[in-house]
Amino acid sequence: MSTQFWCERAWVDGTVADGVLLTCDDTGTLSGVETGISSAPAGAEVVPGLTLPGGVNAHSHAFHRILRGRTHGDGGTFWTWREVMYSVAAKLDPETYETVARAVFAEMLAGGYTSVGEFHYLHHAQDGTPYGTVPESGRPRGDAAASQLRSEPTNAREDESRPRGDAADEAAGSRAHAMERALARAAASAGIRIRLLDTCYLTGAIDAELSAEQARFGDGTIDGYMDRHTALSASFAEEFPVRAPGESYVHVGAAIHSIRAVPAANLPRFTELTGPVHVHLCEQPAENDACHAAYGTTPTQVLARSGVVGPNLSAVHATHLSEDDIAILGQSQASIVMCPATEADLADGIGPARELADAGAAIALGSDQHVVLDALRETQGLEAGERLRSGQRGRFSPAELISALTESGARSLELPVGSLEVGNACDFVALRTDSMRTFGSLDEQIILTATSADVRLTVSGGRVRVRDGVHAELGDIADLYAAAFAALGMEG
Amino acid sequence: MSTQFWCERAWVDGTVADGVLLTCDDTGTLSGVETGISSAPAGAEVVPGLTLPGGVNAHSHAFHRILRGRTHGDGGTFWTWREVMYSVAAKLDPETYETVARAVFAEMLAGGYTSVGEFHYLHHAQDGTPYGTVPESGRPRGDAAASQLRSEPTNAREDESRPRGDAADEAAGSRAHAMERALARAAASAGIRIRLLDTCYLTGAIDAELSAEQARFGDGTIDGYMDRHTALSASFAEEFPVRAPGESYVHVGAAIHSIRAVPAANLPRFTELTGPVHVHLCEQPAENDACHAAYGTTPTQVLARSGVVGPNLSAVHATHLSEDDIAILGQSQASIVMCPATEADLADGIGPARELADAGAAIALGSDQHVVLDALRETQGLEAGERLRSGQRGRFSPAELISALTESGARSLELPVGSLEVGNACDFVALRTDSMRTFGSLDEQIILTATSADVRLTVSGGRVRVRDGVHAELGDIADLYAAAFAALGMEG
Repeated sequence: MSTQFWCERAWVDGTVADGVLLTCDDTGTLSGVETGISSAPAGAEVVPGLTLPGGVNAHSHAFHRILRGRTHGDGGTFWTWREVMYSVAAKLDPETYETVARAVFAEMLAGGYTSVGEFHYLHHAQDGTPYGTVPESGRPRGDAAASQLRSEPTNAREDESRPRGDAADEAAGSRAHAMERALARAAASAGIRIRLLDTCYLTGAIDAELSAEQARFGDGTIDGYMDRHTALSASFAEEFPVRAPGESYVHVGAAIHSIRAVPAANLPRFTELTGPVHVHLCEQPAENDACHAAYGTTPTQVLARSGVVGPNLSAVHATHLSEDDIAILGQSQASIVMCPATEADLADGIGPARELADAGAAIALGSDQHVVLDALRETQGLEAGERLRSGQRGRFSPAELISALTESGARSLELPVGSLEVGNACDFVALRTDSMRTFGSLDEQIILTATSADVRLTVSGGRVRVRDGVHAELGDIADLYAAAFAALGMEG
Repeated sequence: MSTQFWCERAWVDGTVADGVLLTCDDTGTLSGVETGISSAPAGAEVVPGLTLPGGVNAHSHAFHRILRGRTHGDGGTFWTWREVMYSVAAKLDPETYETVARAVFAEMLAGGYTSVGEFHYLHHAQDGTPYGTVPESGRPRGDAAASQLRSEPTNAREDESRPRGDAADEAAGSRAHAMERALARAAASAGIRIRLLDTCYLTGAIDAELSAEQARFGDGTIDGYMDRHTALSASFAEEFPVRAPGESYVHVGAAIHSIRAVPAANLPRFTELTGPVHVHLCEQPAENDACHAAYGTTPTQVLARSGVVGPNLSAVHATHLSEDDIAILGQSQASIVMCPATEADLADGIGPARELADAGAAIALGSDQHVVLDALRETQGLEAGERLRSGQRGRFSPAELISALTESGARSLELPVGSLEVGNACDFVALRTDSMRTFGSLDEQIILTATSADVRLTVSGGRVRVRDGVHAELGDIADLYAAAFAALGMEG
């Protein structure tokens, strides 16, 4: 049984086509994409406005959404932000995180994204104990602070109003990978396609142990990470098997947190992995300074020497690069995930996106800490930053900007999405071309004028997920946040 | 007969107060502002969420809205933008401009603004003939191109579908100041408070005549400008008399287009005027270069030597300033109107807002070419730019950002608005604190997280103008744009 959508106009093969008929098979995969069809066939849903392939949010830390509007008191420094971030992280367990992530992923869909790369490092219980095990005496964790934390009940666990997971899950064995499964379930229930970027986080800084707050991020050693990652992949292959493009919502990938969090000697191990590898790169000048002090060169060159820079690598931020760094990333055809809204909020600066693209890198986009969850504004932020730093208009054409949001993101996450073509998942977003914001915008220039308020419809796997800002199955998205804040014991 | 609004929370005296009862007299002026009122009295309209004083848009060129989404083809340079801008300007006459401006002002209200400083220089017919007169033989205008333009009928005038003004206006005498009256009527009918900044524009560049496209901007000489400005002020005093704060929607002010468009020798004449004087200042480095070549110093210092830099001066953009310029503007307590969305779109750069504020200037905000019409996003753009150029978070506190949008704008335009206090106009905007975007934001930090999609209600003069994105009297705002584009003979 196939489903059809007749789009008034849609982005197909790098241009705006009129009268586009999308046919979606029963797996949610595109089986037909026809242009120039003058009217909707019987039974097809009519989609007015401009349809784009679903946006790909190539860099997300879902729980950071909870920080939105809570880190600017009296202005707010980076340290205000970090303090609030750790305090929220400490409240998360598998049940609360599933509740939080479901709301965030729903808002993401409403904002025009249908896929997400979740850069995930909250692997273990707050004291560092892996879910589904008892602490292993041999594991190198647990300073005094962590021991203290271990003995404290978390507020969230004491909150009776918090939604609970499946009771059967409470059995220790089935709680292995509980945080990862929480994210996967949240994505599947919201209807967003997730690449869970299972993150390696071993040191608090170069040659420094994890702090107590970071204990739950760590796997002790690179072998510890690789073992857990292998087990996670096997577990997910069973619980969330990858089938046809349209029906597969959960995929696993890997991430190196940063050059600060993984010793250079461990980096070559990431060449053993297939699939995408992401890494935070050069977000702040301090990272470059520390890297020079330890390794005598830039973070990019440390990665390159380790063999991990290639087409499957996505460098996130890439703000403070040397010319050599740009050449290395470009020549290797790496992906670059720019996160303009976050990079402004955290005062990171504006990275050399145009130069990276000219050198051969693919520029993708991410919402990172979700200061905004609006695929259009994030894309506009990429071009705005370029204009501000260069003094020139038109640094990326509208077509390049659409490509950054869609095709490049799909490439970064290695997902069968990002363009409306047969064999890809039937994931798309329909924008209003007749709102007070977009009225008068020409063709693809709407990428520079629309906002999430113009997202009429978000579809993934051929199913309408969000219509006019309301999630088709989960309902009002603010209500999902109300549940999430309640689960965390926080006032909204 | 008074009207009351009971606001769940509102910004009063620089902080968020609970239970604020606003009483508005029959002139639309606030006669009572009480905080800590636990519930709404009978008959008061309940306003949930967070109420802010209406945003002040201190720099607008209304017709530039028509360019939105039309200047980025293949990327788009500054010259693409300028070409499209002049082609739209050429289509405007009093009737079409009233139709355009009504739509723009309605969108402005929906975006959270209740006052606007309209920097207006389209004074005359396209060939430079003042409305309501026949061309004066002695006026210094009319090169060959302008003569050619003069003999061509405009497309807009031939368009039968275009809405016509009052038939009685067609009599030549009553068409004096027809463009200015069109803007004033548009503002009054939409319900936005306007300071019409009647702009002096004499030269196309320093020591260069106006081009044919600029003929309609010019008054020939400074005396020509001053005479027309005096006549305009007298005419408006009659047609739009200034009465109580709440019921007066139309106010006149002056503007010097820029150091490029008004000879330095003419600048001292602006000290004769009372009320606000605005000037475009240092938007592009090229202006500074030309000014140095002609006058041997910076535009700011040319203005200062002419005696026009003082508390009633608003410098718009102020992007490329020297340290001395910053000190001059600060010490004189000038206002600075930053236009972050436009300054990004036009690749102007990021001006030194924090340094100007520290030096003593008041930072206000403007949407300029209306790349976005969203008071919240424009305010967020000010702080984002500061963070990006400084590498520091929290450059302006949320309270300072709210003040920039409200009080500083009111100061720049010298309007009795900008704070919820007795004697000011009853102009306010109510924001949703429980949307998917704003849920969880603390207190005044909503200024950093809301967008125009969170504007539940915009009130001016105690009357609801926009509710949930729809204008109370004018209806769907996109429909107003449809009428405006039709009037211009343009496809939407």
